[in-house]
Amino acid sequence: MDKFVSIHLERNSDKPLYLQLYESIVKMIEEKKLSPGEKLPTIRKLSSILNVNPVTVVNAYRLLERDGYVTSRVGSGTYVRLAVNLVTEGNISEDIEEERSFAHQFPYDFGGAFISPEYFPVEDFKRAINKVLDRDGGYAFSYSESQGYLPFRHSLGKYLAKEYAIDVPVHLIHVVSGAQQGIDIISKALLDFGDIVFVESPTYPGAIDAFKSRGARIVEIPLTQDGPNMDELAAKLRLKPPKLFYTMPNFQNPTGYSYSEQKKKELFALSRKYDFLIIEDDHTSELYYEEKPLPLKSMDTEGRVFYIKSFSKLFMPGLRLGFIVAPEPFLKKLAEVKYFSDITSSELAQRALDVMLKDGSFCDHADKMREIFRERRNITLKVMKKYFPDSVSWSKPAGGLYFWITLPDGCYSMNLYGKAIKNGILITPGDFFYPDRSPSTSFRLSIAQIPSEKLEDGIKLLAGCIAELLEEYRIDPLKGDMYKPLL
Amino acid sequence: MDKFVSIHLERNSDKPLYLQLYESIVKMIEEKKLSPGEKLPTIRKLSSILNVNPVTVVNAYRLLERDGYVTSRVGSGTYVRLAVNLVTEGNISEDIEEERSFAHQFPYDFGGAFISPEYFPVEDFKRAINKVLDRDGGYAFSYSESQGYLPFRHSLGKYLAKEYAIDVPVHLIHVVSGAQQGIDIISKALLDFGDIVFVESPTYPGAIDAFKSRGARIVEIPLTQDGPNMDELAAKLRLKPPKLFYTMPNFQNPTGYSYSEQKKKELFALSRKYDFLIIEDDHTSELYYEEKPLPLKSMDTEGRVFYIKSFSKLFMPGLRLGFIVAPEPFLKKLAEVKYFSDITSSELAQRALDVMLKDGSFCDHADKMREIFRERRNITLKVMKKYFPDSVSWSKPAGGLYFWITLPDGCYSMNLYGKAIKNGILITPGDFFYPDRSPSTSFRLSIAQIPSEKLEDGIKLLAGCIAELLEEYRIDPLKGDMYKPLL
Repeated sequence: MDKFVSIHLERNSDKPLYLQLYESIVKMIEEKKLSPGEKLPTIRKLSSILNVNPVTVVNAYRLLERDGYVTSRVGSGTYVRLAVNLVTEGNISEDIEEERSFAHQFPYDFGGAFISPEYFPVEDFKRAINKVLDRDGGYAFSYSESQGYLPFRHSLGKYLAKEYAIDVPVHLIHVVSGAQQGIDIISKALLDFGDIVFVESPTYPGAIDAFKSRGARIVEIPLTQDGPNMDELAAKLRLKPPKLFYTMPNFQNPTGYSYSEQKKKELFALSRKYDFLIIEDDHTSELYYEEKPLPLKSMDTEGRVFYIKSFSKLFMPGLRLGFIVAPEPFLKKLAEVKYFSDITSSELAQRALDVMLKDGSFCDHADKMREIFRERRNITLKVMKKYFPDSVSWSKPAGGLYFWITLPDGCYSMNLYGKAIKNGILITPGDFFYPDRSPSTSFRLSIAQIPSEKLEDGIKLLAGCIAELLEEYRIDPLKGDMYKPLL
Repeated sequence: MDKFVSIHLERNSDKPLYLQLYESIVKMIEEKKLSPGEKLPTIRKLSSILNVNPVTVVNAYRLLERDGYVTSRVGSGTYVRLAVNLVTEGNISEDIEEERSFAHQFPYDFGGAFISPEYFPVEDFKRAINKVLDRDGGYAFSYSESQGYLPFRHSLGKYLAKEYAIDVPVHLIHVVSGAQQGIDIISKALLDFGDIVFVESPTYPGAIDAFKSRGARIVEIPLTQDGPNMDELAAKLRLKPPKLFYTMPNFQNPTGYSYSEQKKKELFALSRKYDFLIIEDDHTSELYYEEKPLPLKSMDTEGRVFYIKSFSKLFMPGLRLGFIVAPEPFLKKLAEVKYFSDITSSELAQRALDVMLKDGSFCDHADKMREIFRERRNITLKVMKKYFPDSVSWSKPAGGLYFWITLPDGCYSMNLYGKAIKNGILITPGDFFYPDRSPSTSFRLSIAQIPSEKLEDGIKLLAGCIAELLEEYRIDPLKGDMYKPLL
């Protein structure tokens, strides 16, 4: 540990201590005073060596990890990343190896929001992209319209009509670089400082960030098993109606809840009465395990709904493709905003996905995924019932990848998160899905990444963590009050 | 023309007439009352049939073209697009054919800002992408950090150090989906309503739109052959310094001007004195035809410059990749903003380009392009001198793709634009590059799309248009006052 003793931190500097520490360690790595694979001191140890708050070390280590200098392995420690030097020497095979082990550092990953890379239809995609390159040559890399490659938009139109009863002319379809960009672009096109946006509570935090960046005021509408709490919604509408209502009516993220047909109709009636627009974020509608629910957009006769469809969750997150079906009056503005945001989405990706929509391999993939995740959903429901204590409740999603699990009152999910991590289990604490990040007793359990055969062991182990936490609360009922976000 | 007589427009409707006309024609196409390949009436003809202003028909036709329903051929007319129906039947080969002829509808295209698709290194890219797919499988589509794929960022770091004397640690490099997104993300991270941004005048309009969308106030600094007019810059700084100065110091778009070393230094001194940040947009630095100029960023010892590098102009616009080198204190905010803008840039594209940076095919391509465009630049200078009247002046760019041509006082480039189009020549009127789009006597001439062997004929023909325009002005000196944007 001698080499760490020599780190000098300037306590009177404007630069925060953790940044100074980060820079010192980067320097040691770059000067090879620390070797690839070498273990860093524990947080407790280094904070005592340097006489700083442990939080300073935690922050420095997190920064090092974010920038790819170190990697942390649960229950094992923090190591200088193998790839740091190898990569610069042009040898990348080790890095790929590391990446794979990195993804598997949690034996029970209930955190991931995207399906595992081994399910991506790589061979089909490879065939498609080679077809495009051979057929189109350099044109595969040129710009098409900002709205997207026309033949692709035609294919999307056919897909929407066939699968989701959304029958719209092709000029209403606007290709974007994933659903997140869809939300961001609509925000830029519609929202001014101080505008009100209603969101479900809990909801997807990436949407909140996009709305807030436009200076919008966020109003939360509590979500129940069959849609929004209508009394609360009505009350808040009477107070002040929003410009936009952001919703995931089917298999919501993070809860897995879906709107009843009745509530969908009521929402439309309200949007008419109070004249607001709706953003429908459709992230996993292909993964229905019971009757296929239709999107809100299929009922939209008046042009009130911006329908955003992502290909990321189910298909290939790194491809960055999705699309918006927009009400006619907003098309021009959306195209303008898309243009100054990033001009257009990857032409190559659009052309390749177009081939896969036309040759049927996209739909084949969706069918395959539906069967795999239906099985996972069923096993999860069964084993949660078997192992979880009676005081815990959970949603029974009719589709998608998420379960919303609620612990007894006062028992915070962030504390469970810490305990679970120590056991190699990743969950997402509920705090993450509320705008103010307030402590939540619920958490999201995702089945996107964990294979079926590990579900029972994972849930059983998690149930053990819950039982342990409940026992601690029984002995010390004030434990909940000590709750603080762990990092 | 009978079928057009039956079009009914509702003059008292809230919906603009051109939109009604657009929708009527879309309906006729969809109901096959108009066949693929069928010619639409001329603007004059249809406006007289329907008794509407020609502008109404122009706007409807433009919308039809934008949405891919029709295609217009110069000097020939407007036709229902072949692909409209073919595509929906799954037969796309005709569409590709049409695309190629579409790109060549102007025999002399001095408008295009990107190099022709036939120069894209398709075979190298194909090898790279297949290598990535075979090596990484599904991981090629997963998300890496929001900042970008680490090995790619290492490659970029090496490239910057080697080619541009920019020597920065890899954590300062942030991958984005093209330069336009780079500008947009920096705007989101830094600009609040009412903030001031200085821009060169003329400048790239996509940047202005991004700044304006944040509510920024744009202040123009006139550009001269060797950089900004320093007196004007100093005067405006004394009045009120900006938060940001947006610049393209080398081979500027649209002028082709480059900053002198002296002015680069003065700009840094001013940025220190008045404490503003600089965005350096580096779009074509690979295309130097004389001594290689270094970016401003290479002189930035204090972290004042956001350096944005695009791969679009030179390489593959449709790939949507670029990167930012950011001052340390803004990294976190940039990563946040990138996340809620579109999460991350295409993982697959990053990995493929990484392979091409490592195996040298990227640099080989840049070398090849430099030779091609140096030749075009030289020919263009020679033939402009040969054919252009003495009263016309132009820039002599040391690199890049653009010439800035200035007509005599009062002789507006938009009038030349109209005349040039009739002769199959595309240029970009200067109006486009000023925030208020005020009439300009200058225009941009780009050599990106036109092959060397057509340069002389194209410039000669354009010189003819200029001579004709000058003669018209001589006969009717008030002609300039009649100037209106043509569309």
